[in-house]
Amino acid sequence: MLRISVRCRISASTMKECIDAITAVVDEGRLKISEEGFRLRAVDPANVAMVSFELSSDAFEEFEFEEEEELEVGIDFVKLSSIIDMGKGETAELEFDTEKHKLYTKLGSLAYTISLLDPSTIRKEPKVPELDLPVQVVIEADVFRRAIRAAEKIGDHILLGVDGDVFYMETESDTDKVRFELGKEQLIDIIPGVVRSMYSLEYLSAMSKGLSRADHITLSIGKDYPLRIDFELADGYAHVSYLLAPRIEAE
Amino acid sequence: MLRISVRCRISASTMKECIDAITAVVDEGRLKISEEGFRLRAVDPANVAMVSFELSSDAFEEFEFEEEEELEVGIDFVKLSSIIDMGKGETAELEFDTEKHKLYTKLGSLAYTISLLDPSTIRKEPKVPELDLPVQVVIEADVFRRAIRAAEKIGDHILLGVDGDVFYMETESDTDKVRFELGKEQLIDIIPGVVRSMYSLEYLSAMSKGLSRADHITLSIGKDYPLRIDFELADGYAHVSYLLAPRIEAE
Amino acid sequence: MLRISVRCRISASTMKECIDAITAVVDEGRLKISEEGFRLRAVDPANVAMVSFELSSDAFEEFEFEEEEELEVGIDFVKLSSIIDMGKGETAELEFDTEKHKLYTKLGSLAYTISLLDPSTIRKEPKVPELDLPVQVVIEADVFRRAIRAAEKIGDHILLGVDGDVFYMETESDTDKVRFELGKEQLIDIIPGVVRSMYSLEYLSAMSKGLSRADHITLSIGKDYPLRIDFELADGYAHVSYLLAPRIEAE
Repeated sequence: MLRISVRCRISASTMKECIDAITAVVDEGRLKISEEGFRLRAVDPANVAMVSFELSSDAFEEFEFEEEEELEVGIDFVKLSSIIDMGKGETAELEFDTEKHKLYTKLGSLAYTISLLDPSTIRKEPKVPELDLPVQVVIEADVFRRAIRAAEKIGDHILLGVDGDVFYMETESDTDKVRFELGKEQLIDIIPGVVRSMYSLEYLSAMSKGLSRADHITLSIGKDYPLRIDFELADGYAHVSYLLAPRIEAE
Repeated sequence: MLRISVRCRISASTMKECIDAITAVVDEGRLKISEEGFRLRAVDPANVAMVSFELSSDAFEEFEFEEEEELEVGIDFVKLSSIIDMGKGETAELEFDTEKHKLYTKLGSLAYTISLLDPSTIRKEPKVPELDLPVQVVIEADVFRRAIRAAEKIGDHILLGVDGDVFYMETESDTDKVRFELGKEQLIDIIPGVVRSMYSLEYLSAMSKGLSRADHITLSIGKDYPLRIDFELADGYAHVSYLLAPRIEAE
Repeated sequence: MLRISVRCRISASTMKECIDAITAVVDEGRLKISEEGFRLRAVDPANVAMVSFELSSDAFEEFEFEEEEELEVGIDFVKLSSIIDMGKGETAELEFDTEKHKLYTKLGSLAYTISLLDPSTIRKEPKVPELDLPVQVVIEADVFRRAIRAAEKIGDHILLGVDGDVFYMETESDTDKVRFELGKEQLIDIIPGVVRSMYSLEYLSAMSKGLSRADHITLSIGKDYPLRIDFELADGYAHVSYLLAPRIEAE
């Protein structure tokens, strides 16, 4: 007998952009499901990056939750992403069977069954550190991604900073340098200040792919401090927040 | 002096789709040429798959056959495919010189000369086994190919079956499963029954590329029995038939 | 204090096609800059191919040259190409700082700083040999490139020849041959003759990419003699000339 705890239907492309935002940081995670929808918080294996993800049940065409309490299931998001990929333009039906530890995914004529992971084998949900990040920049997701791609041609680290009401990104190698700079009028919004921190470009590059389906993103920057990137997906029904630890800047 | 046995002209893209249907199973083969056109029957090196191919001389803009009897020439189809590839939108002129063992291919301003293979170095034409395959499914080529791609994400083998008037394809790994299922109303046609057989996904994947230019395909399925796939190319002037040996299903 | 010797602005895509014409032969080179514009002459490391490049200052939206004499700077063109790539549809601003040995490139909000190479570490500008090449063929760049691609499927060397007013390219392997042939009416122009020379296909293939943005090219051919290819880029403001040493033809 099936023991279906959750049964829901959502546009496959919406689900795909949500999963891709998660896999930018972790391959697998503990997904928490309640009447409110999905949520997840996970850190990458090296403890450098964190993703917080919330998808409201309002994003779903149908959302049935049969449990008393919030449910926790372990998901291989990389595998789920490759499956959802088969359903372009279709509606995905997801059913979580907590008895048999299976996730059933229907995409039109295709029915996938994948095993849920044992949550106890996955790292615990991290605590979100309290951060004091007064300086903020709101920028188009495309523009940010292009700046990251430009930096990748030069180096491995990237400086993000705000100087007054100018936002900049800078990458240096022994011989070369690239600086990306936007003034107030080129940004969607800015809370000015004077801050800068250095980050690993590898992590930011992965994040810039994870946020590529967003319209705009909010960068919260401090002085030698973690970076927070907030953005919405799924027509505003999903909220994603990345945290990225700074690298110590060599003076 | 040239000794041209066959001289013919055909749309390069038509020729290309025919060759690709052959190279899905074998790299080279013995092509038989007569007034009727081209035909070929070949098995893959592992004796798992067979292709039967017939292209009517009516598919050609011009078809001159100067011999008394059917001619047999050895062809490297992979090489011929890469050559024909240069002629998108053009007419291909093929001349078989059985004296010099050459195939001359003209594509506009390009003239290729490739050596014919000695037919005696190529495996003999196989006998087509008598098969009793009463259950048939007619399905769009695109839909079949998509189901194969979905299965590739999960495993190495695939079960094809009919249960009443439902056609299904199923692939399992240790932890995951994908099932593709179409009812009578979603199929172009079905001769119902209860059969199922397991096949190597690697071979079916190659075949699904070979048939991708067909509109629809006919699957003839038995119980732990070879699979036959029939389809037409070249606006109906070419008929292709694949046979694929079953894998023994582990119970 | 900055010491800017040259400051200029040019369409990024125009700059890109010029750089790609250079990198078809060399990765780095000594660029000479004067009031007239840019010029460069370089041979590849194996001494088989040479590129001569001239870009008129009229191709630039702005061109400020502050020196008394012609300036020589060492450029890593492969790196510059990957940078200019970020500026599709934009204007590139280039500033050469000969004090700090830097090239500043601005593409919208992106500012790249790359180090100039020490010209003394780069091979000296070669002398252009005096060549007597009476036979010429003018052909569309696309057609030439397609013929090169066709030849790549067969062999490593290519024969270029003119026989009367027919231009041909021929490549042979042990078993196969491809011949590309255009008569007078299919060529833009021809100065007829009877000549042929063999060249390395690897070099010609790189050159065929370097000239792919040209409309047409002029081939000057001799008998077992270097090949010269002339073409224009940047709406006629750039002139490029390739020289390629012949291979001795095995008889």
